[in-house]
Amino acid sequence: MTAQLDSLGRLRHLLSLETLDRQMIESLLDRADTFLRPGGELPARTSALEGRTVTNLFFEPSTRTRASFELAAKRLGADVLSLDVSTSSRAKGESLLDTIRTLQAMSVDIFVVRDAQAGVPDYIAGLVEPHVSILNAGESHVNHPTQGLLDVLTIRRHKGAFGNLAVAIVGDIQHSRVARSTGQALVTLGVGELRLVAPEGLAPDPAEFPQARFTGLEEGLQDADVVMALRVQKERMAASEIPDAADYFRRFGLTPERMALARDDAIVMHPGPMNRNVEISDVVADCPNSVIEEQVTHGVAVRMAVMEAVMATIHAEATMTPVAAGERR
Amino acid sequence: MTAQLDSLGRLRHLLSLETLDRQMIESLLDRADTFLRPGGELPARTSALEGRTVTNLFFEPSTRTRASFELAAKRLGADVLSLDVSTSSRAKGESLLDTIRTLQAMSVDIFVVRDAQAGVPDYIAGLVEPHVSILNAGESHVNHPTQGLLDVLTIRRHKGAFGNLAVAIVGDIQHSRVARSTGQALVTLGVGELRLVAPEGLAPDPAEFPQARFTGLEEGLQDADVVMALRVQKERMAASEIPDAADYFRRFGLTPERMALARDDAIVMHPGPMNRNVEISDVVADCPNSVIEEQVTHGVAVRMAVMEAVMATIHAEATMTPVAAGERR
Amino acid sequence: MTAQLDSLGRLRHLLSLETLDRQMIESLLDRADTFLRPGGELPARTSALEGRTVTNLFFEPSTRTRASFELAAKRLGADVLSLDVSTSSRAKGESLLDTIRTLQAMSVDIFVVRDAQAGVPDYIAGLVEPHVSILNAGESHVNHPTQGLLDVLTIRRHKGAFGNLAVAIVGDIQHSRVARSTGQALVTLGVGELRLVAPEGLAPDPAEFPQARFTGLEEGLQDADVVMALRVQKERMAASEIPDAADYFRRFGLTPERMALARDDAIVMHPGPMNRNVEISDVVADCPNSVIEEQVTHGVAVRMAVMEAVMATIHAEATMTPVAAGERR
Repeated sequence: MTAQLDSLGRLRHLLSLETLDRQMIESLLDRADTFLRPGGELPARTSALEGRTVTNLFFEPSTRTRASFELAAKRLGADVLSLDVSTSSRAKGESLLDTIRTLQAMSVDIFVVRDAQAGVPDYIAGLVEPHVSILNAGESHVNHPTQGLLDVLTIRRHKGAFGNLAVAIVGDIQHSRVARSTGQALVTLGVGELRLVAPEGLAPDPAEFPQARFTGLEEGLQDADVVMALRVQKERMAASEIPDAADYFRRFGLTPERMALARDDAIVMHPGPMNRNVEISDVVADCPNSVIEEQVTHGVAVRMAVMEAVMATIHAEATMTPVAAGERR
Repeated sequence: MTAQLDSLGRLRHLLSLETLDRQMIESLLDRADTFLRPGGELPARTSALEGRTVTNLFFEPSTRTRASFELAAKRLGADVLSLDVSTSSRAKGESLLDTIRTLQAMSVDIFVVRDAQAGVPDYIAGLVEPHVSILNAGESHVNHPTQGLLDVLTIRRHKGAFGNLAVAIVGDIQHSRVARSTGQALVTLGVGELRLVAPEGLAPDPAEFPQARFTGLEEGLQDADVVMALRVQKERMAASEIPDAADYFRRFGLTPERMALARDDAIVMHPGPMNRNVEISDVVADCPNSVIEEQVTHGVAVRMAVMEAVMATIHAEATMTPVAAGERR
Repeated sequence: MTAQLDSLGRLRHLLSLETLDRQMIESLLDRADTFLRPGGELPARTSALEGRTVTNLFFEPSTRTRASFELAAKRLGADVLSLDVSTSSRAKGESLLDTIRTLQAMSVDIFVVRDAQAGVPDYIAGLVEPHVSILNAGESHVNHPTQGLLDVLTIRRHKGAFGNLAVAIVGDIQHSRVARSTGQALVTLGVGELRLVAPEGLAPDPAEFPQARFTGLEEGLQDADVVMALRVQKERMAASEIPDAADYFRRFGLTPERMALARDDAIVMHPGPMNRNVEISDVVADCPNSVIEEQVTHGVAVRMAVMEAVMATIHAEATMTPVAAGERR
């Protein structure tokens, strides 16, 4: 895998939370915290990325994640270029490598990449020049690092230390990049207990989550401090033993009755977009303990912190190793 | 209906001109006037919305209105996020309510909403937090308030007072949100006479326009000060007794011969886009008395005035009622 | 054709390189040079177009050219409006003339126009007001002036004077707006020899390139200083005597063996996007003498120079001929 850190341990790309250490994750969360005002609002604008260009390369459609990265970049003063790309246009047109090279030749500083195929953000990060940074905005089932960061930021802002927390993630763990990235961050931050609740047929290989405990729904919710429901894809139900959405809700939906098993102050999370009354009931989604909208706000703050961090690394490296005229290819 | 004004009578949302009083409409027109330079040009840029985010949520496609709102927002210094949404994507994805909540959690300040379904902008305005404003950019057949404002601004800049004016609107009144919003504004501003000319089958319920006079074409144009043609939708002709575009033009098209019935200084208006030589002849569209392009310019000025007004209200309210930390959901 | 220059010889529009003289081309290249830093990087940002609006009107899809113009405009501080237009929407909606008039009434300063139909940029330039400028971003087979400028800028930065250079362009000359615009600029700049190599069935009327020498591939490459491969469209091969991509590569692809015929310091160019291993081999595309990525960077610099030049002309004209109030329509 392409190194996410430079030789001095600074963040160059954000590809996966799997290999980030506790200190790096905490420093990103600390920085994201500073972007949140006392009432939880986002800042108006800073100028950390003024004159910089952020390009969204979403090979998989997305409204909310693209909007979040776009607003984060704009609030840092960057220019944003959003390109309409799709796997099909990639097939007929130039190679992915040439697309990236072309855009970096236009002085793009940060590429935000989402792709349905595993390995693409890593592949791109291995190709780009030293002055370009890659941020993974969702990669197949395997990585969604900014989602993982916003989830642990949200938990930390409500619960403080992680050591005594029981966090339950409920849903299609097998196909969830959210569960993987959030789970990795929680383990790195020393979470007390990570509980995974998956319907039969949608459970992952336990080797992928060595520090998690796989449980049934009721056992998973019992005295939990944090309960996170995952979005269920209707097309995935066929692969499981669940015939339809109503049955999913009956067997795995977060209802007030089930949430009563958790601690009174347990927070409810969901990465969105929600299928209401499939994986989560209206009452739970909108209850006072629901922090689902806060997650969205924290997503912008986390993305601002990550963009600021990689630009600071690039700037520091450029300042240390001046490039002679004509040397840059 | 959701209140457009706050308890102090300041503009919070712009949903409909129906309930705006004369003073509010005039103050918006006065402010729009200040955005127009002596030669009619728009200003380069102000900073009234610096650090603010305007999001275009167009559930119905539009190029010109979206461009007008986008340019108005940018000229006030705002960041603009344009989302590709459509009724179909709304159906399969998350609920409209959750889409709005998600975007407002990213600190969107103003939503510009266009929808083919009546009631949607009002519904959204009823849901959003006190720091978010909704602007209706076109709603089914019922409302298009910024179009109404730009129309009366254009008339006022050419004719001054409204009391002695005869204004004729010609076309498919039944399906026209322009006729409704512009008609409401004209009545509120005390127009001398509002004449509506509609082909059979395309006339509205007269109860919707209690202060208008329904006339035939020639009677409507006679000594009119202002003549506005509406865009005719080809698919609507089937519902009327007009077989095709050529017949429409023959019976209702604005020609120089018909315009000769109006006053010599009568101005010609059209909300655009025009079907040339269907509802209006080339000669009339391009004649010296045509103010159709000015309407477009005034549209940007009016949208700037409206955005500035709602942001001022939000700012005033936020300053008066400080929110304690953590209180904001 | 609409005049590209005003009565004082200043650039008003950029429609074609055919009628630009050497001094004008050189002054644009000189200005573009100043936008390139010693290492070849683009500048962070200037404010030459602050408060100005650039609108992309691409009636033919394009990712890279649109991105290049958009970044050039943003780096000059302009607001950019990108409209989704297509020939089909133009057909059903308003006339092209009315679309342009509407946008200029919103105070658009520069239109960047790409169209599959010859004559459209010129037609639009003939219609717009004195304060609006048209830049041709690709027009059927006939013009792509900013591509021509970036190509000669790239050659000049590597080779200096043009008088002793042999430049070979290889590919589907007949359908190439790049070959036409680049060829015109090279001739105007006094290139030593312009060699055109086209497969049978894809050669143009020689009368279109009166100062070029048509040669076979090996004769064309012999001692060349510059070799430019053109993108071959698969759908065009049918019209030629080349059955498929593999055959094209076998007969016309730039390989290291063929490039050995050219001078040792010959540079390799391609307008992109490349069909690797069709018109150019991977080895040649990525060799040290390949300047293909530099072309992309120079494209942004050239477009900045052109936009700055036309805005300066408009500004100078507006300052000299003040418009009385109300005179502007």
